[in-house]
Amino acid sequence: MARQERAIRTRRLILEAAGAVFDEHGYASTTIAMVLERAEVTKGALYFHFPSKESLARAVLAEQVLFGTVPPRGCKVQEIIDMTYAVGQRLRTNALLRGGVRLAVDQETPSGVDRGEPFRQWAERLTTLLEQAADQGELLPTVRPGETVELLVGSFTGIQLMSRALTDRADLGDRLAVLWAHLLPSIAVPGLLPGLDSAADRGARVLKEVREAEEALVAVEQMPAGVE
Amino acid sequence: MARQERAIRTRRLILEAAGAVFDEHGYASTTIAMVLERAEVTKGALYFHFPSKESLARAVLAEQVLFGTVPPRGCKVQEIIDMTYAVGQRLRTNALLRGGVRLAVDQETPSGVDRGEPFRQWAERLTTLLEQAADQGELLPTVRPGETVELLVGSFTGIQLMSRALTDRADLGDRLAVLWAHLLPSIAVPGLLPGLDSAADRGARVLKEVREAEEALVAVEQMPAGVE
Repeated sequence: MARQERAIRTRRLILEAAGAVFDEHGYASTTIAMVLERAEVTKGALYFHFPSKESLARAVLAEQVLFGTVPPRGCKVQEIIDMTYAVGQRLRTNALLRGGVRLAVDQETPSGVDRGEPFRQWAERLTTLLEQAADQGELLPTVRPGETVELLVGSFTGIQLMSRALTDRADLGDRLAVLWAHLLPSIAVPGLLPGLDSAADRGARVLKEVREAEEALVAVEQMPAGVE
Repeated sequence: MARQERAIRTRRLILEAAGAVFDEHGYASTTIAMVLERAEVTKGALYFHFPSKESLARAVLAEQVLFGTVPPRGCKVQEIIDMTYAVGQRLRTNALLRGGVRLAVDQETPSGVDRGEPFRQWAERLTTLLEQAADQGELLPTVRPGETVELLVGSFTGIQLMSRALTDRADLGDRLAVLWAHLLPSIAVPGLLPGLDSAADRGARVLKEVREAEEALVAVEQMPAGVE
């Protein structure tokens, strides 16, 4: 068990290092040696988990959608809003996520890595949520969840990119607020709109909530047996 | 005059070659030698117009906004819709435009080239149009032109990028139609909506119109003097 935990931690270290290097240098200029140096693991450990640069890139891309994790909400439209803000907020500090986004966006990423994969994963996860929203009567009857989701993923991609090019992502929260102000009236039933929170600082508040929930969990786990 | 025309043509040849090479290889892997070979001009001619790779990249980026040229419309919201479709359509065939978009989007483009410039140019041009639309009573009173324009540029960027990653831009027209279907009700006054054309094949129709207008112009220019 201890060995398995160590393997998981090593894999994580490598992934985070690879994300940071891909984010800074892009796919073509990244070398395994650069990742090794950053991760401070042995060559053997790296090749055990990732036999090639392509497999590293694929793994970094596959992590991307996990950064959309937020607390579940009764209102599924709010949960989708929260996902976009959580990703936006995490983009500002998390190099693994940033590396995945760069790999998905940069044209130089080779076709063997499949840049389209994270787009499809985001679309799949958001479509499930939007279909739940439809079942709960949150959506206008004109909404086709598949189309709206593709628009959302595409728009988010471009908005974060423009924010990165112009302000190093400092204004991403403001840009997301503008996105939602424009999209929500075409998506959600009017009665839902006043109760939705899509303010520019939503991301910071959602992540604070996630952090507090995690700390509470750790506190419970660290209690002596029998105490509850 | 003949010499000046030749210089303009040579500059254009170089720009188109550079756009194609930047599109295929990205900034870092592009060399002046590759552009020379593609353009089939002399080294002296190239350095006369562009003293460095950075200046070539800046010129390619500066051309981008010209590809949004469409016939002026009485309805300015329609003119903006047409611009997005024209750019989308031209992206499918024009390597100079594609090269500029890749330079703006790829993180590897060095800061000396200023990837943000085309974003600002698009925003400026579209803001002028949207302010005209506001003056003509085409917009809902809640619209803030600057914000809506930034959203439009960002969303367009991401949508074309996602379309490129998933279908090599074959479905870009469909994706633009979905974008406009979601945005227009939050932007234009309700009375305007039924008369607006934002169907997926709008781009092909706008470019056909541009082509016919150009042909008519050439026909007039070629008429013998005195005939009108």
